[in-house]
Amino acid sequence: MAKAPHNAISPTRSEDYAEWYQQVVRAADMAETSPVRGCMVIKPWGYAFWENIQKNMDAMFKATGHVNAYFPLFIPKSFLEKEAEHVEGFAKECAVVTHHRLEAGPDGGLVPGGELEEPLVVRPTSETIIGAQYAKWVQSYRDLPILINQWANVVRWELRTRLFLRTTEFLWQEGHTAHETEKEAWEETYKILEVYRDFAEQHLAMPVLTGVKTPSQRFPGAVETLCIEAMMQDRKALQAGTSHFLGQNFAKASGIQYQSREGTLEHAWTTSWGTSTRLVGGAIMTHADDDGMVMPPRLAPSHVVILPIFRKDEERAASIEYAEGIAAALRKLDTPWGGKVEVIVDRRDVNAGEKGWEWVKKGIPVRVEVGPRDIANNAVFVARRDRGPKEKYGQGREEFIAGLPALLGEMQDALLARATAYREEFTQDIDAYADLMHYFTPVNVEKPEMHGGFAMCHWCGDAACEDKIAEELSVTIRCVPFDREKSGTGKCIVCSKESPGRVPFAKAY
Amino acid sequence: MAKAPHNAISPTRSEDYAEWYQQVVRAADMAETSPVRGCMVIKPWGYAFWENIQKNMDAMFKATGHVNAYFPLFIPKSFLEKEAEHVEGFAKECAVVTHHRLEAGPDGGLVPGGELEEPLVVRPTSETIIGAQYAKWVQSYRDLPILINQWANVVRWELRTRLFLRTTEFLWQEGHTAHETEKEAWEETYKILEVYRDFAEQHLAMPVLTGVKTPSQRFPGAVETLCIEAMMQDRKALQAGTSHFLGQNFAKASGIQYQSREGTLEHAWTTSWGTSTRLVGGAIMTHADDDGMVMPPRLAPSHVVILPIFRKDEERAASIEYAEGIAAALRKLDTPWGGKVEVIVDRRDVNAGEKGWEWVKKGIPVRVEVGPRDIANNAVFVARRDRGPKEKYGQGREEFIAGLPALLGEMQDALLARATAYREEFTQDIDAYADLMHYFTPVNVEKPEMHGGFAMCHWCGDAACEDKIAEELSVTIRCVPFDREKSGTGKCIVCSKESPGRVPFAKAY
Repeated sequence: MAKAPHNAISPTRSEDYAEWYQQVVRAADMAETSPVRGCMVIKPWGYAFWENIQKNMDAMFKATGHVNAYFPLFIPKSFLEKEAEHVEGFAKECAVVTHHRLEAGPDGGLVPGGELEEPLVVRPTSETIIGAQYAKWVQSYRDLPILINQWANVVRWELRTRLFLRTTEFLWQEGHTAHETEKEAWEETYKILEVYRDFAEQHLAMPVLTGVKTPSQRFPGAVETLCIEAMMQDRKALQAGTSHFLGQNFAKASGIQYQSREGTLEHAWTTSWGTSTRLVGGAIMTHADDDGMVMPPRLAPSHVVILPIFRKDEERAASIEYAEGIAAALRKLDTPWGGKVEVIVDRRDVNAGEKGWEWVKKGIPVRVEVGPRDIANNAVFVARRDRGPKEKYGQGREEFIAGLPALLGEMQDALLARATAYREEFTQDIDAYADLMHYFTPVNVEKPEMHGGFAMCHWCGDAACEDKIAEELSVTIRCVPFDREKSGTGKCIVCSKESPGRVPFAKAY
Repeated sequence: MAKAPHNAISPTRSEDYAEWYQQVVRAADMAETSPVRGCMVIKPWGYAFWENIQKNMDAMFKATGHVNAYFPLFIPKSFLEKEAEHVEGFAKECAVVTHHRLEAGPDGGLVPGGELEEPLVVRPTSETIIGAQYAKWVQSYRDLPILINQWANVVRWELRTRLFLRTTEFLWQEGHTAHETEKEAWEETYKILEVYRDFAEQHLAMPVLTGVKTPSQRFPGAVETLCIEAMMQDRKALQAGTSHFLGQNFAKASGIQYQSREGTLEHAWTTSWGTSTRLVGGAIMTHADDDGMVMPPRLAPSHVVILPIFRKDEERAASIEYAEGIAAALRKLDTPWGGKVEVIVDRRDVNAGEKGWEWVKKGIPVRVEVGPRDIANNAVFVARRDRGPKEKYGQGREEFIAGLPALLGEMQDALLARATAYREEFTQDIDAYADLMHYFTPVNVEKPEMHGGFAMCHWCGDAACEDKIAEELSVTIRCVPFDREKSGTGKCIVCSKESPGRVPFAKAY
């Protein structure tokens, strides 16, 4: 007889991490692949999580003075070509529209017709098409700053895709700002990175390192790229958001010029910054466990599911009524972050155990069972998703209701603390190249996929040293941390030259 | 000397309606054309209006049991071909992706490379790509209904475009539902039409007729198309939303089958329905006047602008402080529709008259001027956007604040009443074909563009009669009203055969 599985997700993280991830996404019913290569279907539960990411992050953008707008999906080829590094970075992976109709072909089937004079690229990012408008909008320093964000879909033709983490089409927000001075543009670049850090940690409960990308990892056309980097549970890094200081590169390419306070004609200083549906994948890889998704309460589509339990038909109505009464009381409460508590009463005629496991896999923060005995005792039976699926406790009805907002806050904090502890556990200083090789070489360990982490090493700043590690170990410098110097000076792990401080090396998504 | 213009927008509606519309969109800073043929740039003020449309309508969808999801932008050519009428309807105007990179061409420039095995169409609508997923999701009647909506961009290659009303790319929502029975699918089709009607009238303050499209105006592949139809100020009709009963056509094309309660294998019954950024154009053409946009308060990005007035620099601080105090008090208030009152204090160092006109053109519902005399009297100087731009009145500060929510409600009602009266004024029963010709033939009138309206005529139901009018007068039956029979029976205006009631004929966008 086959051994009964201990967990809802098979394989587990330690058995096969990559497959575990796919199975969690499927079991939580968050997304699936589509018949269009590399494009995903975001299912309602996954989309509701993304909507909450949007809503919360959008409020942070607006609180920092930004407004939303919308620019065309299509970018004329000649626009992309205006910035040399930029087109070099995106030309290899873009969807190209060449025709504007389908027409009857020689063999009767439909073929592309109406060839365009100039091919259009489906936006992989919008610096050039937005820059063209800014060039029209900006005449004087009085027209600056422009602080605009766009929520949109973008397409980058990826060969190897993975739901949420890397897909041909994805949803994102892209901010594009133009400023009078270099200093203001830099302040914007940092301000947004701080919004991203705050959002990742306080909303997604996903701790991140912040720093500057090395030149090899910069956005094509940027002067500097700042980033937030998170550690997933296979100890690989995930770049979770980037904020680019573009200098005057794109202003020159697009002709964004203004008359200065002194009357001279100057190029504006611009920034761009983005986060995407990749954050959903990051949340899954940060919090999900071997039983499925674990939703951070602050962004969960619903906070509580109530499962009416009954054996006989005559118990049914009473259980449902009791459940609805609790739901109504909970829905009047505010969460610790504002907004009302969201509650689902699952009345479906499905086996209670099966129903419970569905919600475990979906990662709803709190599950509540109410059956005849609970009704008799004016009580509930509670399970928190951040604990084991069988770890349930009874509680008085009123006590449970009154304590629910605090419970959500406690769970949110616990998720961040757990993820932070995990990252710290698998972050270590490494000073010898042989040790670094050992750290990242799967052959030396029992579970290769779970090996490694963030290796904090000294680096001289030379691209050759960075490249050597990238080639030999497929490991990259995730960022040069802003607080790099706190780790003290040392010798580059490759060439032994002077290093002003350690930087994190890791395998990455 | 040139005569000073009386209005902020030139030309006025009666001088040149089409050009007036373009000038309003520009003066209100809501959108502009882009370098990509037929694609528009939605500017922050226009996009904020669209965001409010989204937020309000989305809440109505959720209240009626729908959830959001997201499906791929690209549709394989073979999917579109699954439903014959459907592909016939969209093939002539679709953007076709044929390559997945740009590569160096023979003359050094970049050319499309990496040809796709099967061309991809940028979605003009998503029935076929969503249907393919539903076919996977549905096995049993227990999996039904599926009630999903998507907020997305779509592309239809239009030759003649007009900002918001007809653009190559536009933003919309498309609902796609699948049901166990024909009856349920019909109920859904009607339920959504009612959501659209309610939204148009109560949120956009845009009265609409509701009814069924004639076969010639049906969505390609639908069994029936229900619609809401509004009258613009040039008396043309605007189709503002459609709800399609698709029968089993698309279920058959996509293979959406379920095991019924009786154990048989059946095709599901599906619906689809949509509204788009066209609603923004509809709101402009319904409410804007010769001074610019008039925002319906319920959807206005901001409700009140306060303009601090000062002549001397030493008055500046006091005016701004007074303005900010009023703004703070207003922001604590709820609008009649829930949500807080949104207030802008315009502190810019721009001439006061110029500033005021900017806000008139943007259509903000209430403008408040506060200067030294108002401060001395603890008063404000108020202008409502639904009245003339120079019709202002003084009011005590506290009285104004306390009365603001009611004022917004009154203005919302007034806009609906005015638009309804306008439609009624230009709706008339016509029984003789000669009169119909006269009604719609511009040569007979002084201002051809402002001629016509909704002609309520008897129609036998025959496509030949409909076609004759369409060909001779470029006038279409906008819908067969649900309450058609209220108008009594009569004789078809073309062939004199029996007609069960009148239908509205009009020119249309």
